[in-house]
Amino acid sequence: MSFKLISKSPRRGILTVRNRSVETPFFMPVATKATGKSITSDDYNKAGVKAIICNSLHLSMLPGSEVIRDNGGLHNFMNYNGVIFTDSGGFQASSKFFKEKVSKGLVFNNPYNTGTVRLTPEKAMKIQHDIGSDVAMVLDDMAPYGASYEESKKAMEKTHEWALQSLEAHKKLEEENPTGQLLFGIIQGNFYEDLRKESAKFITNLPFDGFAIGGLAIGETQEEMLKAIEWVKEYLPEDKPRYVMGVGKPEDISFLVKHGIDCFDSIYPTKNARHGTMLTKEGSLGIMKGKYKYDQNPVEEGCECHTCKNFSRAYIHHLTKVKDPSGFRMRSIHNIYYLINNVKK
Amino acid sequence: MSFKLISKSPRRGILTVRNRSVETPFFMPVATKATGKSITSDDYNKAGVKAIICNSLHLSMLPGSEVIRDNGGLHNFMNYNGVIFTDSGGFQASSKFFKEKVSKGLVFNNPYNTGTVRLTPEKAMKIQHDIGSDVAMVLDDMAPYGASYEESKKAMEKTHEWALQSLEAHKKLEEENPTGQLLFGIIQGNFYEDLRKESAKFITNLPFDGFAIGGLAIGETQEEMLKAIEWVKEYLPEDKPRYVMGVGKPEDISFLVKHGIDCFDSIYPTKNARHGTMLTKEGSLGIMKGKYKYDQNPVEEGCECHTCKNFSRAYIHHLTKVKDPSGFRMRSIHNIYYLINNVKK
Repeated sequence: MSFKLISKSPRRGILTVRNRSVETPFFMPVATKATGKSITSDDYNKAGVKAIICNSLHLSMLPGSEVIRDNGGLHNFMNYNGVIFTDSGGFQASSKFFKEKVSKGLVFNNPYNTGTVRLTPEKAMKIQHDIGSDVAMVLDDMAPYGASYEESKKAMEKTHEWALQSLEAHKKLEEENPTGQLLFGIIQGNFYEDLRKESAKFITNLPFDGFAIGGLAIGETQEEMLKAIEWVKEYLPEDKPRYVMGVGKPEDISFLVKHGIDCFDSIYPTKNARHGTMLTKEGSLGIMKGKYKYDQNPVEEGCECHTCKNFSRAYIHHLTKVKDPSGFRMRSIHNIYYLINNVKK
Repeated sequence: MSFKLISKSPRRGILTVRNRSVETPFFMPVATKATGKSITSDDYNKAGVKAIICNSLHLSMLPGSEVIRDNGGLHNFMNYNGVIFTDSGGFQASSKFFKEKVSKGLVFNNPYNTGTVRLTPEKAMKIQHDIGSDVAMVLDDMAPYGASYEESKKAMEKTHEWALQSLEAHKKLEEENPTGQLLFGIIQGNFYEDLRKESAKFITNLPFDGFAIGGLAIGETQEEMLKAIEWVKEYLPEDKPRYVMGVGKPEDISFLVKHGIDCFDSIYPTKNARHGTMLTKEGSLGIMKGKYKYDQNPVEEGCECHTCKNFSRAYIHHLTKVKDPSGFRMRSIHNIYYLINNVKK
């Protein structure tokens, strides 16, 4: 891999992994189940999406990581040749199918059958290695927003323990079968300064290929988010990519880019698309509003996305009213296009 | 308009209306609400779809025919420049939102609000003229499969009365505002030989631009369908397009093409796509079956559709299992492509 810093201020670079490149800063749309909810790889390519993130825990349950492996890996399976990150499943501890935390990992109820899935650092590494993503994430333990100091400290310590185990397991897998897959560490510590600093110090001292700041965009104010970034900033090596997980609000991204963050992911564009909220330079536009019924302008004047180049507000309004899946797709295409381009500004 | 017969046996022609052309025989995918259920005009263009059919009754309720008119007509609204047929709503007398038949027309419960919609021949013509389709269909009265001779006769007589009224109303609309829109008559008569013949004689004596045979593919056997076609065949002028409404099964189409039918429409490809049934030369393929989990072949070997050129059976199987809307879209794209090409064979 190489992460090449082209400019320090503003911070601009290129992340190259396994012959795939993406300019930083960049935003990754979420394709949890190897599909972007109505969006497929051809849509990503057309929109100029150079990196996406899938969820390895979900994919290990359906279709199964060995199925993806035997179909030639995730890129071949989805027919997508951009950079693919996979999340480990740590974040799913806040999902409705989380069962319990045990000392060695996390246990989930499999939503596709009656079984349970036990996720250890080793297992999370094996799944991601089998799936064949470009960038794997360690298994981490995230304390929820509002967690006590004690709870946050415990989760941070567990995150550190699992980071070491993830690193070792990943090293072994790459020794057995070298693929060039990268592994990013995750800093936790909730919203406590000494924990964030301790976590940043610990994680950035380990030989990860990049560093993520986890446990943000979970309900805190932008001010709190900034503080958490400020606390850890000095520990982040300049020559490694910096990833803030789960952030998708345009204003948060702009703000974090200014603070030297390189990489983002969020369901923000598709979640908004689902509810008919279109992202534009002028702010959000509720396409369901009656006033768009006769509006022959594109969702956003001058936008080069597939939706705006082909369809009017009136038509997108109509597709939304009749609840056709094509409406969800067209709204998502615009929102994704908006975000991946907005991050570069 | 021109309908140009290029060959009599096999019967091949070109239907041109308002500078838009489609070679006959052709199959029209159904875009009831000005969208093909996950499919938009760019998908139609890519698949080579030269004609589609929308439903003017639905569109009159949402978004309203005046909305489509004021957005520059249906082609502009959908951004589709192929031939657009509109059905009148006569067939919706068999839908769950049909309320009652009155002597002057049909009454429907508006599924989008608490009101009712009264559809007369005049109203059906006005809606379709406002919407701006290329080919309008008369309002007809269709007796269901299994209807008695008396019921079928009554419906046929009502169909004839409404055909005259539709014709007159359409003539007036075109005189006031000439658009070049065509109007097709519809033959009814259920499965009674003398009624079918009487209806064919009556309808084909009127100056319609084309002739549809309605009330087929409503539950009868292929043999019964053939009989109904055979009975009316001699009345159908050679130089006008012949349209069998609602037929989409590949074997029915092949069979009717051999009997000189030029034009078809049906929800068959998308209905099958919804259930994971893929149409192929070898018959239907249930993509949900476990055996496709590892199958890296396209849905149909050699198929040039967007789905087959981009994705494997294994991936379409996965999209179907996770119930992602992209799966429905990809399955629909293949089935539509299959049918529009199959009809030409």
